[in-house]
Amino acid sequence: MLKYQQIAIEIEKYIEENELQQGDKLPVLETFMAQFEVSKSTITKSLDLLERKGVVFQVRGSGIFVRRHRRKGYISLLSNQGFKKDLDDFNVTSEVIELEVRKPTEEAAVNLNIEQSDDVYYVKRIRNINGQTLCLEESFYNKSIITYLNNEIVSESIFHYIREGLGLKVGFSDMYLQVDQLNAEEAKYLQLEPGLPKLCVESIFHLTNGQPFDFSKVTYNYQQSQFFIQANSY
Amino acid sequence: MLKYQQIAIEIEKYIEENELQQGDKLPVLETFMAQFEVSKSTITKSLDLLERKGVVFQVRGSGIFVRRHRRKGYISLLSNQGFKKDLDDFNVTSEVIELEVRKPTEEAAVNLNIEQSDDVYYVKRIRNINGQTLCLEESFYNKSIITYLNNEIVSESIFHYIREGLGLKVGFSDMYLQVDQLNAEEAKYLQLEPGLPKLCVESIFHLTNGQPFDFSKVTYNYQQSQFFIQANSY
Repeated sequence: MLKYQQIAIEIEKYIEENELQQGDKLPVLETFMAQFEVSKSTITKSLDLLERKGVVFQVRGSGIFVRRHRRKGYISLLSNQGFKKDLDDFNVTSEVIELEVRKPTEEAAVNLNIEQSDDVYYVKRIRNINGQTLCLEESFYNKSIITYLNNEIVSESIFHYIREGLGLKVGFSDMYLQVDQLNAEEAKYLQLEPGLPKLCVESIFHLTNGQPFDFSKVTYNYQQSQFFIQANSY
Repeated sequence: MLKYQQIAIEIEKYIEENELQQGDKLPVLETFMAQFEVSKSTITKSLDLLERKGVVFQVRGSGIFVRRHRRKGYISLLSNQGFKKDLDDFNVTSEVIELEVRKPTEEAAVNLNIEQSDDVYYVKRIRNINGQTLCLEESFYNKSIITYLNNEIVSESIFHYIREGLGLKVGFSDMYLQVDQLNAEEAKYLQLEPGLPKLCVESIFHLTNGQPFDFSKVTYNYQQSQFFIQANSY
């Protein structure tokens, strides 16, 4: 982790520990420079990072302010952490239904930018939150990038393993959302009635070098699904 | 508009006109510097802006690449443009059901950070896309910021008016999503049956100085609602 990233974490911790609220003003740059013993450009990078993450906003000529409208229990749709991290306060578990090496569907191959003759790890699992079904997930991992998965890894946070175990850098992602009615199979897995609402989220996750490594389709139990998104102005 | 913002628009146009695809490499910085006759720091700012907007991604030591997974007909959940702009290719119209100055609900007052005795413009409208209902929208605008609205403005793009007519700068926004079943009133407005799925999006829009000026609740017709989100790594 780079210096400016470390400092960003420190500043975020400072905001949390002091329970600063939306609109509260942060100390001026010079204070942070002295406190962390770094240059202005390092602090500026830390604050830019926190702004992109939706933790602060900067008003030209006036200062840096806390941005915290976050409501409890909402899952961030934008964090690339895998959401186990967002729901730290909750008890999230995974039930693995299928884990195998196979050929991708046409749709998965297109989204992963591979051939249908290439291998993928196919993962199907149900995720539970506080004992209730949160979602049904089907994921296709490009096996030439995600070279190994097993049941134990897949029962836990796959993204944690990708980062720490495989040492890969997760970059940007594209997500597509659609609302519809549950079909019989989805309803069964989510323990709901067919015809009830569902939220489907298709995601394509890329490494920082732009290679797509994971195409996933997640069907959420609407009763458990509250999401938030923090959007920045450009 | 600042120089670097102008150049960002030019580069985006270049990508579109040349129909560049995801993964295509852009010219090196020096080429852009020569072409636009600006410094390296200006071009860097333009490219950072395009990266935040999800138009390009930068790979350290290797270059700048096009990022374009966008599927046709999907509405960006992250653009702060008001979505009339995202759906340029479609015919989006608005039917105004109510427009009046009134006191905010408690919920609206909290989210706008005002008192319940303050005035808001209340707007209720249905938005149609290609002749079908897209969503039912209720918005509360802080009247001390959005000082004037009329039927003509509200039938068109309110955000365009806020920017161009009132000269205000729209900043970040917070959005909360929830999936549920349509109640009788919503179903009537959307011309669907009660009990069918709906996507509710609550948004709080802020000026660049951090002041919330609009609290809106939008209920989408699930048959017309496809959304995309481009997420960046931090």
